[in-house]
Amino acid sequence: MSRVVRFHKFGDASVLKLEEVPEQAPKSDELRIKVDAIGLNRAEVLFREGKYLERPPSFPSSIGYEASGTVTAIGSNVKDFKIGDKVSTIPAFSMSKYGVYGETAIVPVSAVTTYPKNLSAEEGTSIWMQYLTAYGALIEYAKIKKGDFVLITAASSSVGLAAIQLTRAAGAIPIATTRTAKKKQVLLDAGAEAVIVTDDENLPERMRAITSGHGADVIFDPVAGPYLDTLAEAAAQGATIFVYGSLGSSGSLGSGQTPFPLIAALKKGLKVQGYTLFEINSDPDKLKRAKKYVFEAIEKGQLKPIIAKVFPLEKIVDAHRYMESNQQLGKIVVKV
Amino acid sequence: MSRVVRFHKFGDASVLKLEEVPEQAPKSDELRIKVDAIGLNRAEVLFREGKYLERPPSFPSSIGYEASGTVTAIGSNVKDFKIGDKVSTIPAFSMSKYGVYGETAIVPVSAVTTYPKNLSAEEGTSIWMQYLTAYGALIEYAKIKKGDFVLITAASSSVGLAAIQLTRAAGAIPIATTRTAKKKQVLLDAGAEAVIVTDDENLPERMRAITSGHGADVIFDPVAGPYLDTLAEAAAQGATIFVYGSLGSSGSLGSGQTPFPLIAALKKGLKVQGYTLFEINSDPDKLKRAKKYVFEAIEKGQLKPIIAKVFPLEKIVDAHRYMESNQQLGKIVVKV
Repeated sequence: MSRVVRFHKFGDASVLKLEEVPEQAPKSDELRIKVDAIGLNRAEVLFREGKYLERPPSFPSSIGYEASGTVTAIGSNVKDFKIGDKVSTIPAFSMSKYGVYGETAIVPVSAVTTYPKNLSAEEGTSIWMQYLTAYGALIEYAKIKKGDFVLITAASSSVGLAAIQLTRAAGAIPIATTRTAKKKQVLLDAGAEAVIVTDDENLPERMRAITSGHGADVIFDPVAGPYLDTLAEAAAQGATIFVYGSLGSSGSLGSGQTPFPLIAALKKGLKVQGYTLFEINSDPDKLKRAKKYVFEAIEKGQLKPIIAKVFPLEKIVDAHRYMESNQQLGKIVVKV
Repeated sequence: MSRVVRFHKFGDASVLKLEEVPEQAPKSDELRIKVDAIGLNRAEVLFREGKYLERPPSFPSSIGYEASGTVTAIGSNVKDFKIGDKVSTIPAFSMSKYGVYGETAIVPVSAVTTYPKNLSAEEGTSIWMQYLTAYGALIEYAKIKKGDFVLITAASSSVGLAAIQLTRAAGAIPIATTRTAKKKQVLLDAGAEAVIVTDDENLPERMRAITSGHGADVIFDPVAGPYLDTLAEAAAQGATIFVYGSLGSSGSLGSGQTPFPLIAALKKGLKVQGYTLFEINSDPDKLKRAKKYVFEAIEKGQLKPIIAKVFPLEKIVDAHRYMESNQQLGKIVVKV
C-alpha cells in the first residue's frame, strides 16, 4: 500500500485527501518512483477546481506534475533508467492520466529525467516546469541576447524567478514587476536589475527611465487581461510579448477580456505570442535542447531554484492554500 | 507652373483640388519627376480625412505616396539617377512632407527607384506599396515555404492580390476571403487556391475542410476588430496572424475593440503580429532585400500588378470615391 493524494470532487484545497491505495506496477513504457519531494504548480490548483485545460476522466482523481524520487520499478520497454536512479519528472504528460502527489507515483518514461547532482531532492523537483517554461519563450523563441531588456511580470512566481535567472544567464537585463513594495528587495536579491512596483509606479514611464527610452525588447507575462495595453506601451519597437497564462482575465482561462493593443502593435510592429510549455514538451527536438540547456546552466550554477516553503505531505491542503495566498516567493515544495 | 492636387481642410473626396502651383526645384537629396501615373492607396483617404498616422503640418497640403514618371531635375547630392530616367516612388517618406498627386512631384531620392521595363507606367506606379507590404510579412518575417497555407483576408485589395501572387511565387497555397460571392471568381482567376465568402460560409469550418484539418499557417489581415477571434479559430498550431491595418475596428486607427484571442493563442501557440510597411522601409537592409525580391519576381512574370480602373487626373475626386466604394479589384490608378 502507498499513500497518495486524491480528490473526489472539484473544490477548494480541502478536497485534497491523503488516501491509502494499493501500489501499482508500471506498464511497459512507465516507471514507478518512490517520491522524495513534490513541486507544486498553479496548474494543479486549476485542475483541482475543474478549471484547467484538461479534467479528470473520473473521480477519485490523482493530481500533480512534478516530483523527484528514486526509481523502484520499470516497465518492460524502459531502457534508459534502472532501479535506484535518482530522477525527477517533467510536466510532459496529461494530468488526466498521471498524478505525482503521493509516496509513490507511476509516470511515463518520456517525462522522466535525471537532475543535476548539485541539487537536493527539494530543488530537483523545482526545476523543470519553471526553467523549461521560461527557456521556451526567452531562449528557444525570443533568442534573447546580451543587452536585451526583458520585462518579467508576476516575477515572484517560480516561473518569474526562473525567467530572471535565465535572462541573467543569457547576458540580458531582467526587469521585474510586483504589485506591492513588499517583495521588491527580494526580487532585487533574486537578480532583477530593477523592480517596478505596479501599485505605486507607472510601468511604461519607469521602463522608459530604466532603459533610457528604449522600452522592453521582450515581455514575459502570465497575466493577460486589460493590462496588456500597458505592457504594449512599455514595449520597444519590434518587441515580443509572451502571454503564458490568463491570471488577469476573467475566468480561469479568460473570456475575451484581453484587448489586443492594436495601435501600439501597428506603430511598433509588436508580436503578442500565446505560449505554453506544451509547445516545448510536445516537440522532441525542442525538449532535448531545452533539457540540455537547463541542466548545464544548473550545473554551472547560473540557475538555482528558489524554494519558498517546504510542507510535509500530510499538510498538502495547507500547501495548496499557501500557493493560493500569493505570499510565496519561488517554489512551494512538499517533502515526502 | 504645374497642376498638383492639394486639400485645404479635412473632409470627403470633394476637398481634393487640382491647383496651379509654381514648379519647385529639388533640394540636395531630392529629385523632381514629371508624373506619368499615380497609384492610389487607402492611406491617402485616411490622410485626407485627418485620420492617418500623421497629419499635414499646415494647409493647403499635398498628398500621395506612389507615382511613376520621368526624372526632370536632380538635387546636388543625387548620384544614382539622371534626368530622363524612368522611375517610381516607394512610400518611404512622410506624407506630411511630400505628396505625389500632380503633374510633377518632388521626392526624396531614398524613396525613388527604377521599375522593371516589362511594366507600363500605370503598372510601374502599382508595385511598391502592395508588393513590399505583402513581402515584409510573408517573406521577410513569416518566411512562407512550399505547402504553407496562407489565409488572405480582404483579398481583393491591391495588397491582398499582391499577397496571393507572392504566396504562389513562394510555392505556398493562398486562400482568399471576400465578403460576398460577387468577387469569388475573379479572386480564383487572380490565383487564389480557394475563396471563402464570409457572409455565406463559416470561415474556420471551410479552412479545416480546405486544409484537411490543418488550418492556416499564416494569416494576413488588414481588418482586425472582433473578427480576430474567428481568424484565430481558423489558424493552425503555431500560426502567425499579421494584422496590418484596422479597417474592422471602430475608429480609423481602432479604439481597443480588437480582442486578443487568448484561449486559442495559448492552446495553439499563436502569434498576433502588428505590421506596417514602415518596418521594411525604415531598415535599409530589409528594404534592399525586399526591392530586389520584388523586382526580380516581376521581371520573371511571377508578380503582375492588377489594375482595377484608370482615371484621368482631372477626376481625382471620383478616383477617391471609387476607392471608398470598395467595388474595385486591385489598384486604382490616375493617369496624368
